[in-house]
Amino acid sequence: MRNFRIIIQYEGTRYQGWQKQGSTENTLQGKFEQLLSRIAGVETQIHASGRTDAGVHAYGQVANFLMDTKMSPQEMMEQINRYLPEDVAVISCVEAAPRFHSRLNAVSKTYRYRILNSPVPHVFDRKFVWQMEEKLDLGRMRQAAAILCGTHDFAAFTSAKKSKKSTVRTITDIRIEKVGDEVVLTFEGDGFLFHMVRILTGTLVEVGTGKRPVSDIEKVLSQRQRELAGPLVPAKGLALMEVRY
Amino acid sequence: MRNFRIIIQYEGTRYQGWQKQGSTENTLQGKFEQLLSRIAGVETQIHASGRTDAGVHAYGQVANFLMDTKMSPQEMMEQINRYLPEDVAVISCVEAAPRFHSRLNAVSKTYRYRILNSPVPHVFDRKFVWQMEEKLDLGRMRQAAAILCGTHDFAAFTSAKKSKKSTVRTITDIRIEKVGDEVVLTFEGDGFLFHMVRILTGTLVEVGTGKRPVSDIEKVLSQRQRELAGPLVPAKGLALMEVRY
Repeated sequence: MRNFRIIIQYEGTRYQGWQKQGSTENTLQGKFEQLLSRIAGVETQIHASGRTDAGVHAYGQVANFLMDTKMSPQEMMEQINRYLPEDVAVISCVEAAPRFHSRLNAVSKTYRYRILNSPVPHVFDRKFVWQMEEKLDLGRMRQAAAILCGTHDFAAFTSAKKSKKSTVRTITDIRIEKVGDEVVLTFEGDGFLFHMVRILTGTLVEVGTGKRPVSDIEKVLSQRQRELAGPLVPAKGLALMEVRY
Repeated sequence: MRNFRIIIQYEGTRYQGWQKQGSTENTLQGKFEQLLSRIAGVETQIHASGRTDAGVHAYGQVANFLMDTKMSPQEMMEQINRYLPEDVAVISCVEAAPRFHSRLNAVSKTYRYRILNSPVPHVFDRKFVWQMEEKLDLGRMRQAAAILCGTHDFAAFTSAKKSKKSTVRTITDIRIEKVGDEVVLTFEGDGFLFHMVRILTGTLVEVGTGKRPVSDIEKVLSQRQRELAGPLVPAKGLALMEVRY
């Protein structure tokens, strides 16, 4: 069995996220496993670096799968792309070491959240930005972001039910940039909890509009209560950009 | 009556072009006139710099309309955008001189055609590029483009039926650039005939693949026969970028 490592792009708009849940849902994992099983002629599983939620996009999702085949990685990529709908594509395919696992070996992930901070709508990027008109103070947002960076218990910043699993994560960087009429937030870390990037963004936006003081952030982190953090912002502004190994 | 001049962006994918033809068609002109008539309370017409064909996009279509209103241009823009579907937006609105006419006063137009020159599909730009895998020789294409620039009879480069109207136009510039895995053609001229940019692109692509010698271009221009020029490339790669006055 050979181990193929692929980089996948998708527009998440019409999918119920990466992870397969039942047979009736339109998920990316489901789509890929159906297609790979057809290519291989036997049931074939795929592992991604992590799940992305319904409506979230990916520019650089990484996944791997095992297959007994004589195809070259290039041929494999072309074969998969032939079957994929046009809102999904494999943009790279290489043969990986037999033990490579795209989720277990991932060391960092980069997510990007795009806020269209303008009253003028964006026709061409409308499915990839969240529009909010209220002016954002980037200086304040950067102060709050600096507090969020580092290793913390992010229990307040997830929609996941309380469980025994650790909610401690390390954020290595949060960049907040003005790009034209957008405010773009780039999060880098060793991993992110369910809804974490979108709740972090919702909280930083409240700091940016002045609704919440910068000093609030430490309190939210230490009290570990979801209700104390900001709102969950829409999925469509979010994209998984890169996974590092 | 005040004269409003607006800049419009649209994704042309689901429209049958700018120009209204019948009441049942989904055209941008039809959409705007319906909406402006509702705002004004009386039948209101709109004039664009020119028609764009079905499926063609616009980043900077210019149009104007007369309305008896007390609204500021800013309010007018917001009001229109409130009614527009999300694949169309007004990105600028100013009050123009009473005699300003967006078609009659236009002095130059810029169109862009994007060719994805790669076997790897583009998920995010799929509706805005035409994918063709065969390698293009940009040097040859630029030589051919240089011959097309200037004032010529472009009768061979239009799908319009022969008529008494002049088919002489002036192309001031054709830029051909490699941008990542795309080849981007930018056409600037005083005006373009029906399908002209897409037939010019189809002809330049044939020069780029070696199917047609550079020296062919002069012959096609002088013989004025549609059959001698290259194929009409798909609408989705084309966009109206800018209109100058």
